[in-house]
Amino acid sequence: MSAGQATHPYYPRDAALPHYAPSTLDIYGAFAVLGGAIAAVGLLSVVLIARAQKRLSCKDKAVVVWMMVCVGIHMVLEGYFSFNHKRLAGMDTVLADLWREYAHGDSRYLTSDPFTVIMEGITAVFDGSMAAVAAYGILADSPVRHPAQLVTSLAQLYGNVLYMGINFMEGFRHTNPHPFYFYGYFVLMNAVWIVVPANLAYDSFRSIYRGMLIAQRATVVKKAN
Amino acid sequence: MSAGQATHPYYPRDAALPHYAPSTLDIYGAFAVLGGAIAAVGLLSVVLIARAQKRLSCKDKAVVVWMMVCVGIHMVLEGYFSFNHKRLAGMDTVLADLWREYAHGDSRYLTSDPFTVIMEGITAVFDGSMAAVAAYGILADSPVRHPAQLVTSLAQLYGNVLYMGINFMEGFRHTNPHPFYFYGYFVLMNAVWIVVPANLAYDSFRSIYRGMLIAQRATVVKKAN
Repeated sequence: MSAGQATHPYYPRDAALPHYAPSTLDIYGAFAVLGGAIAAVGLLSVVLIARAQKRLSCKDKAVVVWMMVCVGIHMVLEGYFSFNHKRLAGMDTVLADLWREYAHGDSRYLTSDPFTVIMEGITAVFDGSMAAVAAYGILADSPVRHPAQLVTSLAQLYGNVLYMGINFMEGFRHTNPHPFYFYGYFVLMNAVWIVVPANLAYDSFRSIYRGMLIAQRATVVKKAN
Repeated sequence: MSAGQATHPYYPRDAALPHYAPSTLDIYGAFAVLGGAIAAVGLLSVVLIARAQKRLSCKDKAVVVWMMVCVGIHMVLEGYFSFNHKRLAGMDTVLADLWREYAHGDSRYLTSDPFTVIMEGITAVFDGSMAAVAAYGILADSPVRHPAQLVTSLAQLYGNVLYMGINFMEGFRHTNPHPFYFYGYFVLMNAVWIVVPANLAYDSFRSIYRGMLIAQRATVVKKAN
């Protein structure tokens, strides 16, 4: 094999991945594992919702499930990447298999790209724990809910806009141009973390504004009495 | 001159800056312009504070000045970079002179580095306008103050952690290793936008928590009556 010839399936074709080893799981296995894990977290959320402090609205139930899934993905999947990014391409684990599958949509996850490593570290630690606080806030009817939902959603949004934007500015060279990988993996999977956080951040900002207005009036009334 | 030889003073020495042209302003001129502009914004803030809705605490006065300075720096200086990054290294303007001076601390501002361009675009548009809303919130005693202060500070913090972190992971190769540029420009100037936003974000998160608690109790009392 001549020097410089690609020994891996990723883009750019000349990405340096000397430690690459193929996955054990195929694509169906990878999706089954990820789908199963998300279903399990969804089930746990349903149990927690049933034991919540007060009856939750349909929307709040959905936000609990969303935040719980975010906790799982941020802390487990993205946390695993953050700790193991240097050797991820060659590791023989289920989580490495999942990353090798997603990496068709973005090879920066296998090449220890500095932006991706730091952004994912923040996502795993900060976004992951604040998503847990937001879920707790809804379930326990705590005032921490909206500030936690706001910072989680804003951090997810900021990280993802940069993540997608940098690949765009670099001509999507990290992404396999096949529509399945480009649209299915890179665009669709990441668009979810643009659309939902943008909505939840807006929702929390508005709720906080209203709450602070009520608090301000209540304090004025208290002082007047 | 042989091919590949640097024709500019920046690091890495082989950074491609074929359009580089030296500044008109020297370092004293650059600092005088920046200092004068910050002083003018400070003066404007003092006038606004004197006309505020209510008597402000010392801390709130300081936050108004900080947010006003942020509006100026984000929208004017960083906005100028966002619009002109492709030709900044060769432009004959005062603002380009300022960027050529700072670029000793980080050449990514002259090379259209994708992360830097997108992060600065977000900073100019989002952080800049939300900082204005936060300053307005304090001056007008509006409930928008803390949610605006929280999102401004969190966005500043997120952008800056990534900005400093990526240069760190790349061995500070974009930075002139001379202590004046490394510590004075890269570390010190950016540390300000880590320390202050971290404090203001924490402060707003806590204020919002308290406000939402008061609002929750006020709503319960209202329902009970």
